[in-house]
Amino acid sequence: MLSNTPQPPYYAAIFTSQRTEEDGDYELTAIRMVELAAEQPGYLGVDSARGVDGTGITVSYWTSLEAIAAWKTNAEHLLAQAQGQAKWYERYSVRIARVERAYASAI
Amino acid sequence: MLSNTPQPPYYAAIFTSQRTEEDGDYELTAIRMVELAAEQPGYLGVDSARGVDGTGITVSYWTSLEAIAAWKTNAEHLLAQAQGQAKWYERYSVRIARVERAYASAI
Repeated sequence: MLSNTPQPPYYAAIFTSQRTEEDGDYELTAIRMVELAAEQPGYLGVDSARGVDGTGITVSYWTSLEAIAAWKTNAEHLLAQAQGQAKWYERYSVRIARVERAYASAI
Repeated sequence: MLSNTPQPPYYAAIFTSQRTEEDGDYELTAIRMVELAAEQPGYLGVDSARGVDGTGITVSYWTSLEAIAAWKTNAEHLLAQAQGQAKWYERYSVRIARVERAYASAI
């Protein structure tokens, strides 16, 4: 299922990561973060994929930079970020981008 | 392996897709497109992941919108796009975005 987003402009948070082999509550936390993000003001959608080599990309879509900043500092999300940095991610990058144009296949 | 990109601003082409079950030359073509993209003027890097559910995300990074437009109309890439639309993708979206901020984990 791919996200349906409105016409640009809007914003995207592109999170790329390389997982460690440590699991713990990773899956549960990842699912919870998707649920929690969807409850935040300004949320437009999320797309996520992780390959068998451990490389993952999650792109979340938002109405504004302010909405992304608020999500970044959400208390439960901050806790998940700290766990991710400590245990689950070998390496990660976050890129904040303004979507200028978009097009999709006919459904 | 995650991409190392320079300081923003730069541009990202976010390609999300849902694969069909048809394979053919998909893997070979996907590998070739990554190689070919890397030879284009203005190319900065690419990150890619596809999960077992068939959802995939490829984000390529570029110096300018012009570089992305040139890549989109590259002859060999156009052929791959046509095959993708005809055979390999159930559904896809392309989003062109300007990366405004970026940060990464310490390596």
